[in-house]
Amino acid sequence: MSLFITLEGPEGAGKSTQARRLAAWLRSAGYVVTELREPGGTAIGERIRAILLDDDHHEMAAMTEVLLFAAARAQLVRQVIRPRLAAGEIVICDRYADSTLAHQGYGLGGDLDELRRITYSATGGLEPDVTVLLEMPVAAALERKQRQSGDAWNRLDARTIGYHERVAAGYRAVRAAAPARWHTIDATAGVDDVARRIEAAIRPSLDRVAGVCRPSERGPS
Amino acid sequence: MSLFITLEGPEGAGKSTQARRLAAWLRSAGYVVTELREPGGTAIGERIRAILLDDDHHEMAAMTEVLLFAAARAQLVRQVIRPRLAAGEIVICDRYADSTLAHQGYGLGGDLDELRRITYSATGGLEPDVTVLLEMPVAAALERKQRQSGDAWNRLDARTIGYHERVAAGYRAVRAAAPARWHTIDATAGVDDVARRIEAAIRPSLDRVAGVCRPSERGPS
Repeated sequence: MSLFITLEGPEGAGKSTQARRLAAWLRSAGYVVTELREPGGTAIGERIRAILLDDDHHEMAAMTEVLLFAAARAQLVRQVIRPRLAAGEIVICDRYADSTLAHQGYGLGGDLDELRRITYSATGGLEPDVTVLLEMPVAAALERKQRQSGDAWNRLDARTIGYHERVAAGYRAVRAAAPARWHTIDATAGVDDVARRIEAAIRPSLDRVAGVCRPSERGPS
Repeated sequence: MSLFITLEGPEGAGKSTQARRLAAWLRSAGYVVTELREPGGTAIGERIRAILLDDDHHEMAAMTEVLLFAAARAQLVRQVIRPRLAAGEIVICDRYADSTLAHQGYGLGGDLDELRRITYSATGGLEPDVTVLLEMPVAAALERKQRQSGDAWNRLDARTIGYHERVAAGYRAVRAAAPARWHTIDATAGVDDVARRIEAAIRPSLDRVAGVCRPSERGPS
């Protein structure tokens, strides 16, 4: 009756591009889709995002970071994700709870059980139906991200290669704990190739979606 | 070797005035004192405070509020309170963890165990040595607060009388769980009277303070 899809993986792997492509593909087939990003996605969450990504905040404690991500997520779940899912729609979120375990847990060395408890409070236990992991070598992802302009390069990207390697290993560990919902896609392929692979990964889940989503008769092509 | 003092009670009871008075009294006796307020007290915390108190944020979920207070507190503990206490100084904080249980727990009906867990993550288990509870009837406190000008009246004050009554009962319940560190002062007395009563309550704790605090020979008068 609804579908909650999250995209995970390093910055520079193309998550936001692919989230947009996936949403367009689903909408073209008649589904009602909400695209979100973390941290953010609500007025309150975007203000929290600005604090988190501010390059001046080099003094931010790891636990502060965890709790700010959790606060933005708590608002996003209650204000947007749950209502949209309750209406039988599709929600696509660029990053979600798995990012906390990968980044603040494996990346920064936070206590995983403590992070799971805080994340559970934030999400109220809401888990994605499908998670797409865009994988690419850390150095290549960082290089791609650094070539981007504007506010794309931020406090969190500026961490060391070692940090980003630990995050990548963290994603693999988190995935191993709940493999059924994860689809791992090689993000070094071209944008169109990656989009097609994501579509193929999502397609089997679409028969779960009905109600106001009004899929076209033959499903997305 | 250090002393961590918190002030609790309703807005309008004079916590910030009394925190300032108490700090001045201790400094006049040669103690090194840091005055803080929650949420806030750090650059990051003040930005979180602005989100929390913004009247436009009527859509803020209770859990978002809890996690934002916790984030500001996590930063304050790690960046300021622990280092100052480690240096053997006195820290006075206008509100601290007890406020979370009283407001978001008893006031908003949040799960107390969940709030304790989140608060423990935020504080790393750091508890005040002394807590001063300024008590006054809810209606009188709100009236006093409403007479104040500027940005003093905010999203949290605007809650119902019933909410503030539950918060007051919450403080009494939290106090009952750890009575030794609490000193309850009637805040309806004049400012000078209240200040003298707080000084009398704090005085027995001062012999614990030494090191860089350089108390004068006969202690504060």
